[in-house]
Amino acid sequence: MPAPVQLEVPHEVTAPVVVGCSGGADSLALLALAVDNELAPIAVHVDHGLRPGSEREAGVVAEVAARLRAGFDARRVTVAGGPNLEARARTARYDALEAARAAHSATAVLVAHTADDQAETVLLNFLRGSGSAGLAGMPARRGRVVRPLLGARREDVRAECARRRLVPWEDPSNDDLSFRRNWIRHEVLPLLEQGAGRDLTPLLTRQADVLRAESDFLDALARGAWPGEGEARGRDLVALPDPLARRAVRCWLGPPPPALDEVEAVLAVARGERRAVDLAGGRRVRRSAGVLHAGVLG
Amino acid sequence: MPAPVQLEVPHEVTAPVVVGCSGGADSLALLALAVDNELAPIAVHVDHGLRPGSEREAGVVAEVAARLRAGFDARRVTVAGGPNLEARARTARYDALEAARAAHSATAVLVAHTADDQAETVLLNFLRGSGSAGLAGMPARRGRVVRPLLGARREDVRAECARRRLVPWEDPSNDDLSFRRNWIRHEVLPLLEQGAGRDLTPLLTRQADVLRAESDFLDALARGAWPGEGEARGRDLVALPDPLARRAVRCWLGPPPPALDEVEAVLAVARGERRAVDLAGGRRVRRSAGVLHAGVLG
Repeated sequence: MPAPVQLEVPHEVTAPVVVGCSGGADSLALLALAVDNELAPIAVHVDHGLRPGSEREAGVVAEVAARLRAGFDARRVTVAGGPNLEARARTARYDALEAARAAHSATAVLVAHTADDQAETVLLNFLRGSGSAGLAGMPARRGRVVRPLLGARREDVRAECARRRLVPWEDPSNDDLSFRRNWIRHEVLPLLEQGAGRDLTPLLTRQADVLRAESDFLDALARGAWPGEGEARGRDLVALPDPLARRAVRCWLGPPPPALDEVEAVLAVARGERRAVDLAGGRRVRRSAGVLHAGVLG
Repeated sequence: MPAPVQLEVPHEVTAPVVVGCSGGADSLALLALAVDNELAPIAVHVDHGLRPGSEREAGVVAEVAARLRAGFDARRVTVAGGPNLEARARTARYDALEAARAAHSATAVLVAHTADDQAETVLLNFLRGSGSAGLAGMPARRGRVVRPLLGARREDVRAECARRRLVPWEDPSNDDLSFRRNWIRHEVLPLLEQGAGRDLTPLLTRQADVLRAESDFLDALARGAWPGEGEARGRDLVALPDPLARRAVRCWLGPPPPALDEVEAVLAVARGERRAVDLAGGRRVRRSAGVLHAGVLG
């Protein structure tokens, strides 16, 4: 028996909202639940133009939106090939969702990540060595982006979709996924759960919640100690205790979260041991007259 | 070509020292390196009486110690069967090592955990959901216990043992291990490393170092905010921000680190929502007249 799915939405989030819809079962269920919750959702499909079939995917979203009497908006973004494709596609997707939110004067962008996605993200970040910020997983809310299904299980969300006879675009859960996420989902988690003799998703998501609270607490201390605004002086940064200095760098850079190596490299720039460092995702941090500057490589 | 192994020993650690020696290759290599470093080591073998062959194991340690002109001390502890056997055996082992240290007026207890053991511990704790304290792994030093090989790789340490023609007790690395650690070592890590396409030990140990620094920083804040000494008032504990309150509970309870659930249960006792809670390892926390008390169940 699948459990009924409740949306967890902060009270400031009111109609209308934008819902990021890939056409997968999770996002269609989220759209339907947003309608039920009288959030007057606009389904937004973002086409990255990265794989065939994305137009038909948009068609599925448009059809379901019409049936649910929700709005629909199709956005197209261009992501050039090359390194860090996945990270750049994600950034472009969230930028497009935010643009749609502004265009529709919506209060928030809802995305359909479930507790299972959270557990997978935590495992992926663990294997990247991304530190406690990565182990804290995805926040239930960051700025305008809200994840109202982060406490729900994937199978319950999918059952919700099936119960409403919404037909998702094939199984985008698979081909939409990176190689590594698929591997985590289909090989790593099953092996770990077999050995641990239990469902690991509740455990990993609870751990993520605790780490998130610690992470937010440390971030607030770090931001207070080194806001990185105006004159972002390297000397002031490296005068902090190491854990706060690392946090201050993470807060200053913003998403996507830098790897541990990258944070250490930025601290080396702050100490004047090197002049600049190029980060994954096309960002560069350099130091000039003792002040740190972060920018995107042209 | 194995890398030469360096002992990392804090400068306060001077001769004589006690070395925890199971008879395995890692602990014999540590003993030999401690002799080279003029730490005048005494090899201490702790017999838990839990499995056959432990007397012959002690014999191997005695023989190698004699050959290396190191001291030798055999200790026997009694660990009753029942739940949490592994945790209780560990506590009894460290208690016996500390008793030996005091008896020999040694400055420290050296134990032979390597970077590979650290990576396995981090993974085990990750799967227990033990939060950032667990993900920080084993400290290079906690009180009198020092881990001078925590930066060294297992294969280099074993090569050191072989180079010196020290013959370890069969392969205690296997039968000495818990079922779960063996599973992590022989199934989980190889799968993860194959998928990640890299050696994960350096990454997991570096992540542990960063989390350790954050963890120590938060612990210092938490201890300052709620020392838990004298009148350990529940009201003062739960008045702290959640991340500090959880940390204060962990610091107050000490090792073995409680699971997340257990920390939350102690906070519920502090809030007066329940009168007492029994923790794994036979500890009980109760509240009386607003004051928290921790004790071992008789």
